[in-house]
Amino acid sequence: MNRLQLRALLEEVRSGAVTPESAHEQLLQYLRQSPYENLGFARVDHHRSVRQGFPEVVYGPGKTPEQIATISERIVAAGHNLLVTRTTRDAYEAIRERLPAASFHEQARTITLRLTSMPPGRGTILVAAAGTADLPVAEEAVTSAEIMGNTVDRLYDVGVAGLHRLLAEHARLTAAHVVIVVAGMEGALPSVVGGLVDAPVIAVPTSVGYGASFGGITALLAMLNSCANGVSVVNIDNGFGAAAIASAINHLP
Amino acid sequence: MNRLQLRALLEEVRSGAVTPESAHEQLLQYLRQSPYENLGFARVDHHRSVRQGFPEVVYGPGKTPEQIATISERIVAAGHNLLVTRTTRDAYEAIRERLPAASFHEQARTITLRLTSMPPGRGTILVAAAGTADLPVAEEAVTSAEIMGNTVDRLYDVGVAGLHRLLAEHARLTAAHVVIVVAGMEGALPSVVGGLVDAPVIAVPTSVGYGASFGGITALLAMLNSCANGVSVVNIDNGFGAAAIASAINHLP
Amino acid sequence: MNRLQLRALLEEVRSGAVTPESAHEQLLQYLRQSPYENLGFARVDHHRSVRQGFPEVVYGPGKTPEQIATISERIVAAGHNLLVTRTTRDAYEAIRERLPAASFHEQARTITLRLTSMPPGRGTILVAAAGTADLPVAEEAVTSAEIMGNTVDRLYDVGVAGLHRLLAEHARLTAAHVVIVVAGMEGALPSVVGGLVDAPVIAVPTSVGYGASFGGITALLAMLNSCANGVSVVNIDNGFGAAAIASAINHLP
Amino acid sequence: MNRLQLRALLEEVRSGAVTPESAHEQLLQYLRQSPYENLGFARVDHHRSVRQGFPEVVYGPGKTPEQIATISERIVAAGHNLLVTRTTRDAYEAIRERLPAASFHEQARTITLRLTSMPPGRGTILVAAAGTADLPVAEEAVTSAEIMGNTVDRLYDVGVAGLHRLLAEHARLTAAHVVIVVAGMEGALPSVVGGLVDAPVIAVPTSVGYGASFGGITALLAMLNSCANGVSVVNIDNGFGAAAIASAINHLP
Amino acid sequence: MNRLQLRALLEEVRSGAVTPESAHEQLLQYLRQSPYENLGFARVDHHRSVRQGFPEVVYGPGKTPEQIATISERIVAAGHNLLVTRTTRDAYEAIRERLPAASFHEQARTITLRLTSMPPGRGTILVAAAGTADLPVAEEAVTSAEIMGNTVDRLYDVGVAGLHRLLAEHARLTAAHVVIVVAGMEGALPSVVGGLVDAPVIAVPTSVGYGASFGGITALLAMLNSCANGVSVVNIDNGFGAAAIASAINHLP
Amino acid sequence: MNRLQLRALLEEVRSGAVTPESAHEQLLQYLRQSPYENLGFARVDHHRSVRQGFPEVVYGPGKTPEQIATISERIVAAGHNLLVTRTTRDAYEAIRERLPAASFHEQARTITLRLTSMPPGRGTILVAAAGTADLPVAEEAVTSAEIMGNTVDRLYDVGVAGLHRLLAEHARLTAAHVVIVVAGMEGALPSVVGGLVDAPVIAVPTSVGYGASFGGITALLAMLNSCANGVSVVNIDNGFGAAAIASAINHLP
Amino acid sequence: MNRLQLRALLEEVRSGAVTPESAHEQLLQYLRQSPYENLGFARVDHHRSVRQGFPEVVYGPGKTPEQIATISERIVAAGHNLLVTRTTRDAYEAIRERLPAASFHEQARTITLRLTSMPPGRGTILVAAAGTADLPVAEEAVTSAEIMGNTVDRLYDVGVAGLHRLLAEHARLTAAHVVIVVAGMEGALPSVVGGLVDAPVIAVPTSVGYGASFGGITALLAMLNSCANGVSVVNIDNGFGAAAIASAINHLP
Amino acid sequence: MNRLQLRALLEEVRSGAVTPESAHEQLLQYLRQSPYENLGFARVDHHRSVRQGFPEVVYGPGKTPEQIATISERIVAAGHNLLVTRTTRDAYEAIRERLPAASFHEQARTITLRLTSMPPGRGTILVAAAGTADLPVAEEAVTSAEIMGNTVDRLYDVGVAGLHRLLAEHARLTAAHVVIVVAGMEGALPSVVGGLVDAPVIAVPTSVGYGASFGGITALLAMLNSCANGVSVVNIDNGFGAAAIASAINHLP
Repeated sequence: MNRLQLRALLEEVRSGAVTPESAHEQLLQYLRQSPYENLGFARVDHHRSVRQGFPEVVYGPGKTPEQIATISERIVAAGHNLLVTRTTRDAYEAIRERLPAASFHEQARTITLRLTSMPPGRGTILVAAAGTADLPVAEEAVTSAEIMGNTVDRLYDVGVAGLHRLLAEHARLTAAHVVIVVAGMEGALPSVVGGLVDAPVIAVPTSVGYGASFGGITALLAMLNSCANGVSVVNIDNGFGAAAIASAINHLP
Repeated sequence: MNRLQLRALLEEVRSGAVTPESAHEQLLQYLRQSPYENLGFARVDHHRSVRQGFPEVVYGPGKTPEQIATISERIVAAGHNLLVTRTTRDAYEAIRERLPAASFHEQARTITLRLTSMPPGRGTILVAAAGTADLPVAEEAVTSAEIMGNTVDRLYDVGVAGLHRLLAEHARLTAAHVVIVVAGMEGALPSVVGGLVDAPVIAVPTSVGYGASFGGITALLAMLNSCANGVSVVNIDNGFGAAAIASAINHLP
Repeated sequence: MNRLQLRALLEEVRSGAVTPESAHEQLLQYLRQSPYENLGFARVDHHRSVRQGFPEVVYGPGKTPEQIATISERIVAAGHNLLVTRTTRDAYEAIRERLPAASFHEQARTITLRLTSMPPGRGTILVAAAGTADLPVAEEAVTSAEIMGNTVDRLYDVGVAGLHRLLAEHARLTAAHVVIVVAGMEGALPSVVGGLVDAPVIAVPTSVGYGASFGGITALLAMLNSCANGVSVVNIDNGFGAAAIASAINHLP
Repeated sequence: MNRLQLRALLEEVRSGAVTPESAHEQLLQYLRQSPYENLGFARVDHHRSVRQGFPEVVYGPGKTPEQIATISERIVAAGHNLLVTRTTRDAYEAIRERLPAASFHEQARTITLRLTSMPPGRGTILVAAAGTADLPVAEEAVTSAEIMGNTVDRLYDVGVAGLHRLLAEHARLTAAHVVIVVAGMEGALPSVVGGLVDAPVIAVPTSVGYGASFGGITALLAMLNSCANGVSVVNIDNGFGAAAIASAINHLP
Repeated sequence: MNRLQLRALLEEVRSGAVTPESAHEQLLQYLRQSPYENLGFARVDHHRSVRQGFPEVVYGPGKTPEQIATISERIVAAGHNLLVTRTTRDAYEAIRERLPAASFHEQARTITLRLTSMPPGRGTILVAAAGTADLPVAEEAVTSAEIMGNTVDRLYDVGVAGLHRLLAEHARLTAAHVVIVVAGMEGALPSVVGGLVDAPVIAVPTSVGYGASFGGITALLAMLNSCANGVSVVNIDNGFGAAAIASAINHLP
Repeated sequence: MNRLQLRALLEEVRSGAVTPESAHEQLLQYLRQSPYENLGFARVDHHRSVRQGFPEVVYGPGKTPEQIATISERIVAAGHNLLVTRTTRDAYEAIRERLPAASFHEQARTITLRLTSMPPGRGTILVAAAGTADLPVAEEAVTSAEIMGNTVDRLYDVGVAGLHRLLAEHARLTAAHVVIVVAGMEGALPSVVGGLVDAPVIAVPTSVGYGASFGGITALLAMLNSCANGVSVVNIDNGFGAAAIASAINHLP
Repeated sequence: MNRLQLRALLEEVRSGAVTPESAHEQLLQYLRQSPYENLGFARVDHHRSVRQGFPEVVYGPGKTPEQIATISERIVAAGHNLLVTRTTRDAYEAIRERLPAASFHEQARTITLRLTSMPPGRGTILVAAAGTADLPVAEEAVTSAEIMGNTVDRLYDVGVAGLHRLLAEHARLTAAHVVIVVAGMEGALPSVVGGLVDAPVIAVPTSVGYGASFGGITALLAMLNSCANGVSVVNIDNGFGAAAIASAINHLP
Repeated sequence: MNRLQLRALLEEVRSGAVTPESAHEQLLQYLRQSPYENLGFARVDHHRSVRQGFPEVVYGPGKTPEQIATISERIVAAGHNLLVTRTTRDAYEAIRERLPAASFHEQARTITLRLTSMPPGRGTILVAAAGTADLPVAEEAVTSAEIMGNTVDRLYDVGVAGLHRLLAEHARLTAAHVVIVVAGMEGALPSVVGGLVDAPVIAVPTSVGYGASFGGITALLAMLNSCANGVSVVNIDNGFGAAAIASAINHLP
């Protein structure tokens, strides 16, 4: 149960769609959960969806497939949607034994399982990517945003070296409620997009490139120095983080 | 005239509050302006408020007081609100000769002049600062957000070394629509705030610190690596940029 | 024989628990050892435990399993406890052939063999870790501190994005004599812990993270810039080093 | 009133040296203070001495002399000892108007005022400095450690290029309870000292040097990579921080 | 006499416009010069114009006004055009005493004196600059290119945050024989220009910006990673260097 | 059809070599192509050869062999020459199934297929390489320049530690229209070559070296700081980029 | 034939030990060699031993075993001693087929073949190494120095954390004509050695270490900032380079 | 008295030029000095000339003129030659009051006073500098080498962009016993010189340059990666250090 679901429940009580008794039961069930569950190697944060609108997300690196599966099982057991990021097919196999309904998104390297329907956002999140090599990060953003209850529009291979490809999609750009821009190399795309829209732009530098791209540092620095207004930046290759921010914006009251 | 004002004008026509003739006149007056005005050393972008919700902002460094005053005069002549950032008292003196109503915000190093009332945002922007030395950047964010039509709440000197000072203000944190967190040194405050709220958090690293703070690089890197969801980052000391993003979020339909 | 054991022996002579003849014999046996033993590729420092309270520790990288086993054998032959760090199962197999009592700590990547009982420290060393991926470094600190004669308390997965997990353990934090804090990504945990306790805090940055975490540089810099008092820092992933300092503090007279 | 003073007070009640009535009165007076005092630009943390053994220390940079003087006055009004670091003669003049008893330590760039006697530490803190140019940082450590209630021994200009100068002072080195080592350039002194003592060593890199010393980065990195055990590190030029850690160690029960 | 002038002279002999006697005299006069002239603190390279198409250029920093004036005098005495870069009004005053015809370009920080007419280039060199603060570097390129015999077109304040300002000048962009693009901050302009033209693009990063622009490093890295073809890069703020390359291209046979 | 071919076609119409009807048909066929073709994961830019003189080049990394083959097929289907860079034998196998005439250049890691004859350049492009380990990058430049219609001369293993090897080839150096200089380690060769020729020099740093060569950063920085005029720089190991610039220069009208 | 051999030959002619006829023949044979031999992928520099005292050394990385074997064969065919550095067993196998007398030094990763006896140096070269993991680099220096005609003394595992191991070898240190000091981690050993001897010290940083050792950067920087006189530095892991310098010094007339 | 003077004295005793009584007296006078003299802020190392061939050199930065003058007086009082580096006219004025014979070298920023004649070196030290702006560092090397008893030859403004200026001085290069090469910007000169001579080359990077020269880092890195043999490197701008090494080499027995 997250903050928006809590508010919705109370609205339903007022409107009579839900009886006070049923609401009482649902709240009790939630409150019976400990705020976190200590597995020894991890403390699963069960109240995060109330505090932050989405349950704890499992960050894959540094955890064994067995640990990931155990944490995932506890999250689902608590009635939350599941999202695992930066993960592998091995982890997916371990999860599938316990949670057969889970899905693996190969290009995005994410695992998801949707238990409950999230409240829809106010508008569309557009995910734009500069080149084909940026797609894994862009797809991480897409699958993350979708599991968080957002409608997502994809706009791929629109790098600044062929501006007409971007300008031809001007209408989709300005229609978006939030824009995520994914780019490596010189990271110029967020500046150009930022000058064309008034929606907030979340820039995601990628490690695409070689030599003086320094594994994404160049794109990161370029985005931090954007001369366009309205551009904020997340870590290199952090498609999930961009989606979390975009979703937070898209779900503001 | 920005995008929100344009929408409001059309609403007023529908409701009868404004006659079509008057609206026609207002629109004509706007469209008679060239999209930009070439001063030789600068091209003032008069349509930016339509594209991006706020007119062109004057970035002070590298411009003479005389250049700043000339550009400011053209912006005001076009009927726009004025915001000059990273500026000096000298530039203010040059502006005041031409625009006596302009104000200088010493700590924030900004100059503002409000000609038209901006549409109000949906909620409050909270500006939190870790320490006293971070106030110039925090105040740049405050004065920028205010001239863009936002209500701003200040929360200063709440660094993580004395957590009780922050936790005592929990209610103001969760009441905000968007949170700007300004911090130097180890830049830990956005992670802690990001874990407490579900509003989007814009983190502003500052150059406060010495030695291995490297002029704000440490705070910048820490913020980019935040383990909390919902935190995006702008350039070091970029209070204005954070305000522009926060205002864009706060003015989403 | 280390400095504390030497002092203890002399106390026992004074109290009559040990005869001067026996003490004489023990001291002679120690002094008959050369201060170091030259193996050609290594000079084993047999007097280090007198100078520094713990015998030479074997640093694994760059040594063949055979070299590690040979050095380990010489240390044990001199009557010292054994600690090998940053090592592998291969090295363990080589050691076990010569020293069957040795133990391999897989997650910690350490090998230990306890020959003599170390004098106990004055209090407890608390090892706190921000996330599950930090456990290898945390466990290196734990196994190192234990072989040096310390009582250790573990507090894992208490990162700052879910502060309630940390605050719930406030009593264990303030009860510790020394605190080791292990964290990657933005490295904010030592600052928060440092503000809650008056015990010395040894911060260990880890290479956990990606992109702009730069293999632990971000966490390292953040910890060096901590706004909390009482925080000192060791090298990235240096769990052993933190344990050695904590043990030195814990064994101060 | 800090944690040690609180403990001492209760001991005195038990021993009869202080009446319960008098102790009650002292505790009430303390508790009547708010945990912090909001000056608008700063929140003075009045309970820090209970949490951390020393009251809030005023960090000078980024504050006007007037702000420093105001904060200092509030700290002294609350009955605490005063320490201002990285400050200037101008700030001292502003403080002296309100607190005539304050002292300025020119080389150390600190201001102190001792209101109450701190409990003495268990041993001596030795401050060793590699060269004459390192003295400002060393003296910052000395004046900070002294106001925190420690006995300090100075050992200056003992850099490794003339080892005999250091070895001649071997007895003072091994007599210390904690050692602070201050060095710039290649930062080798802590490694050499760390190999000679079993006390904890706090290494302070300084910005002394030129070219590839990079303002102290080289010394910082060298110290973090020390092959000697028991060496932890603080920020470049952070003499105060080293003193705070050393004092925390020196005041452990 | 440079390579092009030499070729032109021989053409004139063939066409009869110059007599062999006169050409002989001109060549003798040139060959009588030593290939370089040793002033002790400098060796003036008098044959550089034959090797490289333009005489030695005086780099200002690290030379006293007196040294600059002495070298300038020797260059002019040898019959060459004079260009001094990164210089000051003081150096200009020293030069003007000996060479009253010299000109000082304040914004460009260059001194020039045209003795002989350079052969014209094949086309126009366009110098585009992203913002007003980039003008000193752009003007260094302009004055350098002009003294080397090129026709220069200026296109200023066309940064990517307001693309319409650039696209409105598309015709001037495609008409240029070589394009120099000067930009700071995120350095995105060369990528956008590079995608629009087939002329070679010389990108000049500038130190304009703050925080994570790192004195132009960000712009430099972005330009090196340009996804557009045909973009090569020179040092930060090196307007002169870009002009020298552009002129070399423009004067190719 | 690229810009030069378009111009050539119109010349042929004027001269009568091509009938207006035939030219009309050729132009129609070209214009019937969409300016780009959206494959979902990529938008193939079919008009790039008009804008930039060479069709879109396929950058290999981050694309699957299947994606590369699909894009390659579309480029060839549109009548363009094919160039794939930084590619592998696997990609070549995938391409060869669809385009049997394609060639794989193993050392250069490029794939080419020549459909149409490019207009010849004005002169020769010389590719000089400092050492044997630089040959993969040099050969990438050679195969790229050749497919773009240039005559290329190779000058390999002429590093500055044995200057006589370079000086012995002085005639080939000065005969070139454009010079590409490929070097790793200290990257000194472009400065020496730049002092010997008046043709434009494109410097390509390589990742050849170890230790403080930092994967080519040292060579890159050295080249950016060249004291010779006429040297511009591309990304580390970017042989293709240098060829594209050199070809653009070589095909200027 | 190198410079010293040339001088020795002329001395022998003067003394009558060699007839002018014989000397004439030897010189002719040498001069008949081209100064370099162009293999296409490499130009073997046959006169380097005259210019620099040792023939061209084959740097292994980036060359195939076949290329290395071909170059080696040409060097030996010209009568020179062979040294291949940073090489592999594969390259050795390729060489051994053509030059069965070649030796492979596994730890040093070098291949040598001694054809002619080099003139002996004036004294001993001492190679000191801080730890066991530094031995590959130290042995590269040893095998390189020996093939260049020097007497070498090894002093291994004498790091500064156990100073007594170094001080015990004081006599060997001061007896050396030149000292090579090999160390990783904090790189302090050259400073300590430099303070003890008046012979020139060549410091070789190694990539031994982890975390903030940054692959040897820390040791490199520390050595460049050495406060001891007489210490110069070579690239990280460059044992061969240090040997070449030490040999040049040791063979000075 | 340094090591060479000691040896010379004993030779003179053997030859009868000095009586044993006189030698005895001289030795006694030396031995009566303490090995160092503790001034509180500095420990003057009076035995350094025996250990290292030259007395302690005073490093200026971070010392007050008064401190410099006091240390200088003690060095001269002990009978040693004086060298102060990186100093100012103010320090010179303070010294001159006590030591009127001292000389100030303005460009070199050194102060010297010659009390005793140093033993001459075996050959000449050549100091080569790439450009005029490098002269302060070159002159620091020259004045340092001269006070240490060396004959110095200057070769200035011979940068690689005009190779003929260097090649014209080939004879002076090959005549030198040791070569110091001083260069900024791309730092290529040591590689070129290193390929021409067999004497040891000490490379001194300077902070001359701008932008991506990063205060000398580029030149430093280039020199460390020199492909020429026999090149070792000292810190940026460290002319004195290069002179100390060159002098040590030049005074080897």
